[in-house]
Amino acid sequence: MHKARFYTLTASCPDQVGIIARVTGFIAEHKGWILESSFHADDVLAAEPPQGGDKTIPGAGGAGELQSPPSTGRGRGEGQPNGRYFMRIEVRADSLPFHLAEFRSRFQPLATELQLDWRINDSAVKKRVVVLVSKQEHCLYDLLARWQSKELDIEIACVISNHDTFRGFVEWHGIPFHHVPMPAENKAAAYAEVKRLFEQTRGDTMVLARYMQILSPELCAAYPGQILNIHHSFLPSFVGAKPYHQAYTRGVKLIGATCHYVTADLDQGPIIEQDVIRIDHSDSVEDMVRYGKDIEKTVLARGLRYHLEDRVLVHGNKTVVFR
Amino acid sequence: MHKARFYTLTASCPDQVGIIARVTGFIAEHKGWILESSFHADDVLAAEPPQGGDKTIPGAGGAGELQSPPSTGRGRGEGQPNGRYFMRIEVRADSLPFHLAEFRSRFQPLATELQLDWRINDSAVKKRVVVLVSKQEHCLYDLLARWQSKELDIEIACVISNHDTFRGFVEWHGIPFHHVPMPAENKAAAYAEVKRLFEQTRGDTMVLARYMQILSPELCAAYPGQILNIHHSFLPSFVGAKPYHQAYTRGVKLIGATCHYVTADLDQGPIIEQDVIRIDHSDSVEDMVRYGKDIEKTVLARGLRYHLEDRVLVHGNKTVVFR
Amino acid sequence: MHKARFYTLTASCPDQVGIIARVTGFIAEHKGWILESSFHADDVLAAEPPQGGDKTIPGAGGAGELQSPPSTGRGRGEGQPNGRYFMRIEVRADSLPFHLAEFRSRFQPLATELQLDWRINDSAVKKRVVVLVSKQEHCLYDLLARWQSKELDIEIACVISNHDTFRGFVEWHGIPFHHVPMPAENKAAAYAEVKRLFEQTRGDTMVLARYMQILSPELCAAYPGQILNIHHSFLPSFVGAKPYHQAYTRGVKLIGATCHYVTADLDQGPIIEQDVIRIDHSDSVEDMVRYGKDIEKTVLARGLRYHLEDRVLVHGNKTVVFR
Amino acid sequence: MHKARFYTLTASCPDQVGIIARVTGFIAEHKGWILESSFHADDVLAAEPPQGGDKTIPGAGGAGELQSPPSTGRGRGEGQPNGRYFMRIEVRADSLPFHLAEFRSRFQPLATELQLDWRINDSAVKKRVVVLVSKQEHCLYDLLARWQSKELDIEIACVISNHDTFRGFVEWHGIPFHHVPMPAENKAAAYAEVKRLFEQTRGDTMVLARYMQILSPELCAAYPGQILNIHHSFLPSFVGAKPYHQAYTRGVKLIGATCHYVTADLDQGPIIEQDVIRIDHSDSVEDMVRYGKDIEKTVLARGLRYHLEDRVLVHGNKTVVFR
Repeated sequence: MHKARFYTLTASCPDQVGIIARVTGFIAEHKGWILESSFHADDVLAAEPPQGGDKTIPGAGGAGELQSPPSTGRGRGEGQPNGRYFMRIEVRADSLPFHLAEFRSRFQPLATELQLDWRINDSAVKKRVVVLVSKQEHCLYDLLARWQSKELDIEIACVISNHDTFRGFVEWHGIPFHHVPMPAENKAAAYAEVKRLFEQTRGDTMVLARYMQILSPELCAAYPGQILNIHHSFLPSFVGAKPYHQAYTRGVKLIGATCHYVTADLDQGPIIEQDVIRIDHSDSVEDMVRYGKDIEKTVLARGLRYHLEDRVLVHGNKTVVFR
Repeated sequence: MHKARFYTLTASCPDQVGIIARVTGFIAEHKGWILESSFHADDVLAAEPPQGGDKTIPGAGGAGELQSPPSTGRGRGEGQPNGRYFMRIEVRADSLPFHLAEFRSRFQPLATELQLDWRINDSAVKKRVVVLVSKQEHCLYDLLARWQSKELDIEIACVISNHDTFRGFVEWHGIPFHHVPMPAENKAAAYAEVKRLFEQTRGDTMVLARYMQILSPELCAAYPGQILNIHHSFLPSFVGAKPYHQAYTRGVKLIGATCHYVTADLDQGPIIEQDVIRIDHSDSVEDMVRYGKDIEKTVLARGLRYHLEDRVLVHGNKTVVFR
Repeated sequence: MHKARFYTLTASCPDQVGIIARVTGFIAEHKGWILESSFHADDVLAAEPPQGGDKTIPGAGGAGELQSPPSTGRGRGEGQPNGRYFMRIEVRADSLPFHLAEFRSRFQPLATELQLDWRINDSAVKKRVVVLVSKQEHCLYDLLARWQSKELDIEIACVISNHDTFRGFVEWHGIPFHHVPMPAENKAAAYAEVKRLFEQTRGDTMVLARYMQILSPELCAAYPGQILNIHHSFLPSFVGAKPYHQAYTRGVKLIGATCHYVTADLDQGPIIEQDVIRIDHSDSVEDMVRYGKDIEKTVLARGLRYHLEDRVLVHGNKTVVFR
Repeated sequence: MHKARFYTLTASCPDQVGIIARVTGFIAEHKGWILESSFHADDVLAAEPPQGGDKTIPGAGGAGELQSPPSTGRGRGEGQPNGRYFMRIEVRADSLPFHLAEFRSRFQPLATELQLDWRINDSAVKKRVVVLVSKQEHCLYDLLARWQSKELDIEIACVISNHDTFRGFVEWHGIPFHHVPMPAENKAAAYAEVKRLFEQTRGDTMVLARYMQILSPELCAAYPGQILNIHHSFLPSFVGAKPYHQAYTRGVKLIGATCHYVTADLDQGPIIEQDVIRIDHSDSVEDMVRYGKDIEKTVLARGLRYHLEDRVLVHGNKTVVFR
């Protein structure tokens, strides 16, 4: 790697005065050299449901959207923060006088005091990714190209597919390939096999790279924040099947793709990354599918990179992404 | 104007062999000089509802989205087109040996034969636009800047508002301003007044420039394809009230705006133009409102320009936009 | 293919009244079913050099850019077009009563009369593409993924590289791979070998997919409009070597890529397609290289598709791209 | 304002271990509530010129761009940072036990110790902006709309123009307007008058909102980092006059705009913000001018906002923009 080895501390906690000073003070005390750092105080609004859905247009004496400006929440605490606080700090490993285990144990008391939900990862330990595909090639080729050139500096633990289509291609790269059919009459066994393979190959992250199967609720629940999907629409538009057909029928002028964490609610998980591309009336559904592929693979690769670099912190059904 | 005067013929009809040749043949016969021309054959698919909604993921023996590729419809006709055909042709006025009225009457027989739904407009006749606003300034300032510089070469017949906020600003520009309050207990009378003003000022096009009122079904029905709205979301996401709050809650990574024709179904009309802008976790609802303004005014201006230049042809609930 | 076989006529000629009518009239006469058609009248301005370069800001009595509006040229002809005209027409093959050879011979007299620079291609005849690469993988993987899925419905005649890096990967796909080293002391022989391979494998199109060598003037001259390059900057910014370093030093906020036809003037050929991506101060040159890859492969693929579908017509040092 | 009053500390200094801890420690010591904070360690590379310009394509034994990866500089210090460090911190005013003057004086010793180049601004003190325009309306209307709605919470000290065109419009808003002609034979006096007005109206920031005059070197030198220009191209492409004509002639597929600080070198100052929009072969120079306006005003507004909110830190000829 071109960058010296570093540890990445990610954490969130109830907001209060002095968090940055306490955490960076601990690091400075040990002469830790901070390479990169990001902080975010979440607005309380995040916890409040919007009034939307039922349209209530203000009357004559009423007001537009701007007349009742969104409170940022910051003013409510009357002198005290009351939201949630997020941070991500990269510390150069060789600047610290101890190794990772000791870093963690020494940091623990402060973490406890600040009520941190935290982790520290080591850039020298490669993440192990399990890729699930069906019959479409674009995301798979794209991921393997990035892996091959070390742009994504990961281990691909294995590739799992409900078809045998890409066995040769995957195995040529020296990556184990597992064909796990998904018979309609016995999906439970198939999902159990996926789980077994993920565990056996010591996967950290599962990537649904245009995998045309809905994971079982059990699988979703087993790995919260560890399973990434690429959905071929700009969510929340066009949830579910055949989003390009839906987009064609509605006559939208842009189509998109969404990388999100998988939860038991179909296409409802926390969004990590999205992007769109322009289309027009001359584009058929097939043209959209083709344009969409370019967005899908790029959005998936970006979202996956953020995830692997510990840049994504989940907060309720939303994400903080320290790019 | 920098461009010579021209006539714009827009038309749609059942597709068949020879349409372009017939129509451009007529023009060539009269030595008409075509400045710009666009043609589009609509896919039959447009008329078919998608299977979407209920997600049916294919089983092991099944197939993904690509295995059952969308038929373009072109192959079905067995040698004959069977969709709908759209065209837009600009003919330089001084190249023709007759004026508009005669152009129309001479063209009528061919139009009848081809079953054309058609119109011919004259670039020298300025469209008359009626603008409806509430209390937000950005679209109004933007439209008046474009009108003032003749970038939009239109007449602004009048500005109507449910508030008196912008009277001075509008009247300073020499444009009539009408304050039509919208009391909750008697909106019907107010909408009747809007209609009366539109008729009295001989409006061609009504523009809801962030007008915070829902038009009555009667108004919508009276002017199909003549009323443009700018909705502050990337439709079909976040229909209805407070879309930025909805977007904030869902945690999307891009927000957008949609210019569409108004129909009786709220935010469901044919989409003319859309665009998006990137946001991230650090953006509050208020930040989104601010970013959104830039997209709203740009998308509205683009959509309005397409409409005024007869570049938009409505087809069912979709649009063909010859940019 | 999902679309019925069709012929694509592309042509340009001096503009005059009646071109569309004549050409589409010929097609209609033979009952030809037009699937798609595009027309463009070029402004005369294209032939005029801009005053730019030496900045002459207008004085007090002078005027801004808009006061001397660009003549569109259309007004100059005093009733006659005087620019150049471009067209592209897809005709369904089975709607015509003759085959390609006869189509061409029957069309010839009209083409001569209109002084057309024209060609007709058959969608059933796959283009033969020769890909040149060095050591970077992203464009190669991307092209092979598109070829593998028939998204790009072409023959890859062979891959040529100045390194042996990708031999295994290419040959696994069943595509011939040729290692043609580029010794500094004898590039002429190497370029002759590239030319020989292109001829021998009957290549139509040569694609420089991040090929880190400058082609010889002889090669460039031998295949005008047949060699596509992807340059890793938004031209005309950052011509030549290490454009991302140049971009880093200048502190730009967006970086881009450009797909263009290769001419003897380095990075000066007609531009087919471009795109950009946002960066910021936190991005190192290496980050830019990584972001840039995503733009490069997408822009190359789009430009190549336009080229292969006969959507690109070269006009001087510019292109007309009928998307 | 919806946000409580806050102080913004911006600073840069030689990088070393412990900067964040020291600065945020000072703030925490006084119970300062940090609303937002951003940090950036600059790569040493920034100070090194690129090898570019003369294209040296590597030979057979050589390597491509990636083989000599850009050193991030971080590895060179052998355990010590050696670049420059940047920060921006918002502290809620009412959380501190002292006012601005005391904040500054108490902070001074630490600032001296860390060799900070720093400033602290008060959100309650509105910046005073002087706008310079010529005859184009789009940026002026756009800025006044944002000012009118308090989206830009500034004072517009006055508008200066070399034409009298917008006097009425500006004065209607209650803003002083000064017509300062720019006779070719005596620009020095005119520039002196601009300087006098800027001083007299106590301007903080000068905005060239499509001002068609080149400022004198004296003016540029007098207010480094205080004068913003919007250039109508995606710099460094198309420096100087008539960039849209230049873009038309080169046949680019995107056009752009650049907001930058003005220096004595024309269009060479540090870039704050840029954006682009897609065009195609059918767009005339005039179309580009029209499209460009939308980008120009948006990019100027964004760049100006970053500047006014103390989000822009100049570093050599580049900027750090903490968005």
